[in-house]
Amino acid sequence: MSLKALYLWFIFLGFYHLSVAAAKVRHFKWDVQYMYRTPDCLEHAVMGINGQFPGPTIRAQAGDTLHIELTNKLSTEGVVIHWHGIRQLGTPWADGTASISQCAINPGETFHYRYKVDRPGTYFYHGHYGMQRSAGLYGSLIVDLPEGQKEPFHYDGELNLLLSDWWHKSAHDQELGLSSNPLRWIGEPQSLLINGRGQFNCSMAAGFGNTTLPQCKFRGNEECAPQILHVLPNKTYRLRIASTTALASLNLAIGNHKMVVVEADGNNVQPLAVDKIDIYSGESYSVLITTDQDPKKNYWVSVGVIGREPKTPQGLTILHYQTTTASKLPTSPPPITPRWNDYARGKAFAGKVLALMGTPQPPKYANRRVILLNTQNKINGFTKWAINNVSLTLPSTPYLGSLKFGLKTAFDQKSPPENFSPEYDIMSPPANPNSKTGNGVYMFKLNTVVDVILQNANSLSANVSEIHPWHLHGHDFWVLGYGDGKFSAGDEKKFNLKNPPLKNTAVIFPYGWTALRFKADNPGVWAFHCHIEPHLHMGMGVIFAEGVQYVRRIPEEALTCGLTAKMFLNREHN
Amino acid sequence: MSLKALYLWFIFLGFYHLSVAAAKVRHFKWDVQYMYRTPDCLEHAVMGINGQFPGPTIRAQAGDTLHIELTNKLSTEGVVIHWHGIRQLGTPWADGTASISQCAINPGETFHYRYKVDRPGTYFYHGHYGMQRSAGLYGSLIVDLPEGQKEPFHYDGELNLLLSDWWHKSAHDQELGLSSNPLRWIGEPQSLLINGRGQFNCSMAAGFGNTTLPQCKFRGNEECAPQILHVLPNKTYRLRIASTTALASLNLAIGNHKMVVVEADGNNVQPLAVDKIDIYSGESYSVLITTDQDPKKNYWVSVGVIGREPKTPQGLTILHYQTTTASKLPTSPPPITPRWNDYARGKAFAGKVLALMGTPQPPKYANRRVILLNTQNKINGFTKWAINNVSLTLPSTPYLGSLKFGLKTAFDQKSPPENFSPEYDIMSPPANPNSKTGNGVYMFKLNTVVDVILQNANSLSANVSEIHPWHLHGHDFWVLGYGDGKFSAGDEKKFNLKNPPLKNTAVIFPYGWTALRFKADNPGVWAFHCHIEPHLHMGMGVIFAEGVQYVRRIPEEALTCGLTAKMFLNREHN
Repeated sequence: MSLKALYLWFIFLGFYHLSVAAAKVRHFKWDVQYMYRTPDCLEHAVMGINGQFPGPTIRAQAGDTLHIELTNKLSTEGVVIHWHGIRQLGTPWADGTASISQCAINPGETFHYRYKVDRPGTYFYHGHYGMQRSAGLYGSLIVDLPEGQKEPFHYDGELNLLLSDWWHKSAHDQELGLSSNPLRWIGEPQSLLINGRGQFNCSMAAGFGNTTLPQCKFRGNEECAPQILHVLPNKTYRLRIASTTALASLNLAIGNHKMVVVEADGNNVQPLAVDKIDIYSGESYSVLITTDQDPKKNYWVSVGVIGREPKTPQGLTILHYQTTTASKLPTSPPPITPRWNDYARGKAFAGKVLALMGTPQPPKYANRRVILLNTQNKINGFTKWAINNVSLTLPSTPYLGSLKFGLKTAFDQKSPPENFSPEYDIMSPPANPNSKTGNGVYMFKLNTVVDVILQNANSLSANVSEIHPWHLHGHDFWVLGYGDGKFSAGDEKKFNLKNPPLKNTAVIFPYGWTALRFKADNPGVWAFHCHIEPHLHMGMGVIFAEGVQYVRRIPEEALTCGLTAKMFLNREHN
Repeated sequence: MSLKALYLWFIFLGFYHLSVAAAKVRHFKWDVQYMYRTPDCLEHAVMGINGQFPGPTIRAQAGDTLHIELTNKLSTEGVVIHWHGIRQLGTPWADGTASISQCAINPGETFHYRYKVDRPGTYFYHGHYGMQRSAGLYGSLIVDLPEGQKEPFHYDGELNLLLSDWWHKSAHDQELGLSSNPLRWIGEPQSLLINGRGQFNCSMAAGFGNTTLPQCKFRGNEECAPQILHVLPNKTYRLRIASTTALASLNLAIGNHKMVVVEADGNNVQPLAVDKIDIYSGESYSVLITTDQDPKKNYWVSVGVIGREPKTPQGLTILHYQTTTASKLPTSPPPITPRWNDYARGKAFAGKVLALMGTPQPPKYANRRVILLNTQNKINGFTKWAINNVSLTLPSTPYLGSLKFGLKTAFDQKSPPENFSPEYDIMSPPANPNSKTGNGVYMFKLNTVVDVILQNANSLSANVSEIHPWHLHGHDFWVLGYGDGKFSAGDEKKFNLKNPPLKNTAVIFPYGWTALRFKADNPGVWAFHCHIEPHLHMGMGVIFAEGVQYVRRIPEEALTCGLTAKMFLNREHN
């Protein structure tokens, strides 16, 4: 670190402490436990918080410190919660990633997440251990502007839509199937949930003939009755939409209403008018709608699967003009979800999401480029996903502690590969399907500007290349561009350095590449992974780290496992 | 401790170390993981070891040291293994009880169980965390006499039968149901397993007309085909029978063959000839059979449920005289299981199990008496079991570490009650059903002779009092007697002090009491609990401790959780 950098660092720390001191602390006491619920009208064990599924919505103001006292009330399972989209500046131990930022919280124990929500936006939180997100451990986290500040867009009210997918097979069973040889794939979800509510064995839109399911009949107090969105005519509403699906890529539309996209992953974007919006797992958007339609009618909000051949009925709820009765169904059928494999449409949408003027621009050049080839592979007969031929298996000692204390046996000390063979044919199944497991770390010098090229490829089956939404912890990145085929030297000339959107999740399209740039300016250890939970479980992720030597005050409760615990115990003798 | 006691202690330690030094160390590397299996011809996730279900059978000689290197290959669950019947003299940290003797082993981590099997006998091992025993985590542990020593009975060969019960609902779902309000009871098992094998949707004895199930047709390599017991005519066999059922009390019989009981819970007993043997969860027996029947026939081994109204078909296998073909079915129907509620018969059997001459006799008097009333109760609407009105909720810091290091906030410091109100009517549902949770410890001065009177009572439903097999860790006890109704002062005159059997598990019969005596001579913390896994999960247990100040060399890996981990971490600052 140069003297100047050190000086700036101290200034940063100074401001940081000042602002923390001035902020409001919001305190929450949460118990994580399983409960019986009927999220899609069938009863199932669901992982919830304080008896709620989805978990409680957190609402805070930028600059606030959240203090979540999380008690594990499960019987034999550990738990953590990741605060998706919150960068955890100065608090990398609060990122809520088991094996990475902290030890999983043991049953009966309490962990204190204390971190600042430094930036307004639409976020969410979810389990980040095994398949606990699939089990239902998620909720919304909404950060408002600080007092006195205003959004660059107007709205009269807001509505919140947390989207997820749901299986009737337990997350434990899903996990076991994914770890079995031969692979037992989880299949498509049985239902899509909007704010934890869906309908599996009936349809709200049965009258429109595109389903064989009977009409749903709700009294309204059912756990699977839709959460109706109540609006007044001739107003503007902000819809906060976030997707915490385990697998499904989604498209959302509202009958008769246009949407204007204004926020993506906590960053304002250039207003973009659309009829439908694509939302991949790990993404969040705000859209504005104007209630300028016939106020004597209600309208569908519909969510459907894209990117995989759908076997799941649309998720539905009602936009209810309060000038009529809530129980009145719309008169037209729900909006039709686009053809699942119309990737040209998907790419066109992704390419149109651009930063709002005034958003920080990316540095002109990167100091380092990491090219990450995404492949499906075999390891000893087991089906895995690998990055540059390494399938991630998380270590039992979290990286943050082992890097901080130099515990070199905790994970592979060799850096993982930064590129793949130029001969690799991304258009065909791997010539050699065999891969290996690993848990090495991409180490970045603090403040390095990093380019990541995510390169998609053909999976193990011919003519199949899947969608993968990649999510980066601890940072936003600029999405510099999307391209088809194999990334080549000339492609960087097409990078958008003018108004690339700042996001934390970006998709790679089949057989394509996605280019990201970020500044490794947040001391800590950070997961970067496909946000499809079963894919991550099958090894589809990498670990980034920067400036761990500057990390201070890791709470002991983040370190009481594995080699960090043993290190401290070894120094004492009983 | 007096000078003399201290002197004896050093002598003990000296001998202990000498014998350890001379013993053979048997080393095992085990991975615990879920696997798909078809234990009763239906596929289910099963918790197994090294790909085996039941886990590998351990075979050792008395005096050997076992070293089991246990790696948790589960995804998000902790794990421990309890070595049922092994007293863990000098190694209380190796008893394998989560929250009591050690921290649960985290996923990806390895724990080293190192302990001496000091005494020959028929034992078994099983999970002791949540409902992991129900999930299938168990196996046999058989300790032979030291070289040159002989049993007081002769046999030509031996056969091993590990009995269990099996549900089609996952152990996770069972747990959730037990923790729900209203209670969702697990119900009766779908099948009984003999060495991990049972038949749910067919019967081996369909031809005998007492079932509507179709005849099982096995090629023999099915995972649910019975493990046939191969014998030669006119020989004596030792059958080692152990029950690790989650719920079921069992009765075992062999067509046409008498049995002679010679061992119970690792202790030799006065030879007892019987047609059928009762075996409660947590018990083990050896019986001798002589193969003196028609050698051209095969014979049923049948296992049925007693003590609860059975809804589970008999477990069956074949005693195969190798003078005929193994596939030949017996010509008579399987032995009929006794009427489930014929408690007079059950009590008569229990009363006839007596120590073999030469077995150590109990001390004449006890120094302390603890009377433990067993009741079913409500706590905030949840159904629980309680002992003297306290329902056990295990703390997150294991007692062994918190007692050793004086961590007084780890558990209730107040001793739990040693008796119950003399007005309590054991014949009726509790007048006040409400109970409370607790986790206090019954502390015994080292070498105290303790009498425990287990007092049964009516459950929450009128005219119901259930069977409870109580299991003590770290010790054997003498079973001084069984009685009906409420224990009263005069009853102790009926105690059998001459030849009471030494056991580690003893049942209480409905509306009755059972009197036990043991010497608190094993420094450590020890669970004493109903061995019915869902009852323990609902709070039916107590904690005993003695001489913890003499416990040395607790491996650090037993302490890396809860307050013990924090204590060490607090001394260091990062």
